[in-house]
Amino acid sequence: MRRTVIGVMGGSVADERTTENAYEIGRLIAAHGWLLLNGGRPTGVMDASAHGCRDAGGLSVGILFDAEREAASEHLDIVIPTGMGAARNIANVLASDVVVACRGQGGTLSEIALALRFERPVVLLDFDPGAAFLDACGPGRWYLAETPAAAATQIAACLKELDRA
Amino acid sequence: MRRTVIGVMGGSVADERTTENAYEIGRLIAAHGWLLLNGGRPTGVMDASAHGCRDAGGLSVGILFDAEREAASEHLDIVIPTGMGAARNIANVLASDVVVACRGQGGTLSEIALALRFERPVVLLDFDPGAAFLDACGPGRWYLAETPAAAATQIAACLKELDRA
Amino acid sequence: MRRTVIGVMGGSVADERTTENAYEIGRLIAAHGWLLLNGGRPTGVMDASAHGCRDAGGLSVGILFDAEREAASEHLDIVIPTGMGAARNIANVLASDVVVACRGQGGTLSEIALALRFERPVVLLDFDPGAAFLDACGPGRWYLAETPAAAATQIAACLKELDRA
Amino acid sequence: MRRTVIGVMGGSVADERTTENAYEIGRLIAAHGWLLLNGGRPTGVMDASAHGCRDAGGLSVGILFDAEREAASEHLDIVIPTGMGAARNIANVLASDVVVACRGQGGTLSEIALALRFERPVVLLDFDPGAAFLDACGPGRWYLAETPAAAATQIAACLKELDRA
Repeated sequence: MRRTVIGVMGGSVADERTTENAYEIGRLIAAHGWLLLNGGRPTGVMDASAHGCRDAGGLSVGILFDAEREAASEHLDIVIPTGMGAARNIANVLASDVVVACRGQGGTLSEIALALRFERPVVLLDFDPGAAFLDACGPGRWYLAETPAAAATQIAACLKELDRA
Repeated sequence: MRRTVIGVMGGSVADERTTENAYEIGRLIAAHGWLLLNGGRPTGVMDASAHGCRDAGGLSVGILFDAEREAASEHLDIVIPTGMGAARNIANVLASDVVVACRGQGGTLSEIALALRFERPVVLLDFDPGAAFLDACGPGRWYLAETPAAAATQIAACLKELDRA
Repeated sequence: MRRTVIGVMGGSVADERTTENAYEIGRLIAAHGWLLLNGGRPTGVMDASAHGCRDAGGLSVGILFDAEREAASEHLDIVIPTGMGAARNIANVLASDVVVACRGQGGTLSEIALALRFERPVVLLDFDPGAAFLDACGPGRWYLAETPAAAATQIAACLKELDRA
Repeated sequence: MRRTVIGVMGGSVADERTTENAYEIGRLIAAHGWLLLNGGRPTGVMDASAHGCRDAGGLSVGILFDAEREAASEHLDIVIPTGMGAARNIANVLASDVVVACRGQGGTLSEIALALRFERPVVLLDFDPGAAFLDACGPGRWYLAETPAAAATQIAACLKELDRA
């Protein structure tokens, strides 16, 4: 059976708290036996979540903006360079059973919008882009989580509803 | 010299006011001699804006979600099927000197997010997804416009700043 | 009604004869009232075909590998940057009623393969990648043409069969 | 360190010998500890290679043409739906350290062309599209292999040259 995939989105530049949250959610995803998927770059939320996943013995996949494998975080297990730029955002979303969104900018917000449009549940980890935006996005459901632990609990609840628990 | 391109984004399902706004902004884009670019489908904001553009004698390009030309609005002059689904959203954004966003859902909001991320000015026509979202998106600037006429005035101002007037 | 689109593919590096052929087929496409579509870069077959099209008063569209408009040929009328790299090749193919392939390398050959797979007629202008390859590609039909004039005649015949004459 | 990825390309429709070859190369890829990547569909070379990989206890990733996970082979471990159609071909190529090409049509041939263009070594398993095509594609190197065992030996030699052994 295919592996359950949790996508972690978020900025390539991140402040200390966001970086710590990303590391910790990566660790928790691994601890639950889920596969981590992210945008693959060696900075910010992408690097930190892959790092946390590896430290906890998990498996991770990065789908890169770039065409070169050298542009990937060293903490990833599987590196998929695309050379597609932001066009790859939709693959990140569609491949995820549940999307976790850490703080980010336009790239991250485009992924939240697509996730809700294509009915992926979104867990917002210490990040609130506003209900006006979130409700307008479409049929997917979204949840606010203040901490990585709360986010992991919410992911588990979403997977149970999706019969992926 | 290359043509000035105004991208019109918005839902494939649209209420009457949004459809009228889309038709009218299409008409005004043509009247100013700008090229209209949209997502190309034969419904909602895409169809209406292409219709308005043609009625005013303008030129329009549609970049389709679908692989088949038959999925295009009949009001378009140039039809580019991609079969890429939502991955084509980034092309719509990058090809636009200025982006006009009519009311829409996740697809439209993903395009607004990418436009602001990649520094395209965004004119929001009777559509307000909230400053929390818009300010988080990145360096591009955004403007609220209540009517198509106000949107066209704002587009012209943006183009002047971009030295495309 | 939508415009008839002739896609011109070929290398970003080109020898003198190939450059002359590309310029001339661009000129002939314009003279027939067809729209020229190519990969948009300012070198090789892309630049030369756009140049020929403009010199004959035609309309051209370039769908770029790159994210920046500045990477486009100055001879193009409509510039669509994608930042998608080679992923945009499929859009070039699907948007074309008929594909003309000038001499090129892997990028061009991937477009010929996709064109035949998706049933676009391909006119090979002074370029023969071998029947073993061409016949294996799929249901589209292909034609060898030694000169731009012969290619234009073949395009016209293909369009007639497609009821686009 | 990132996992070594072997991409297996080939038709979604395949005759018996090609299906057997695909199953066997999937098995050998797993036996060598490499990760199998393919186009993910539940038919032809994609399904058979994933099946062989799983039967030998390996790990496999499928990058789908389609937007729906349900369109994937049941033998895959990691499913990445893209909804991008043939635009995803470039990701399959760029993610592969070495590409194995089984018999196929235009989609497969476009992937061979891109692989050679982007300097991925290509092992042709019981499939010869002709030196005229292969040599024209670009700087990547290609090898003919009559059997899955010969293909696996060639992959190992390529990886050694790439310092991935």
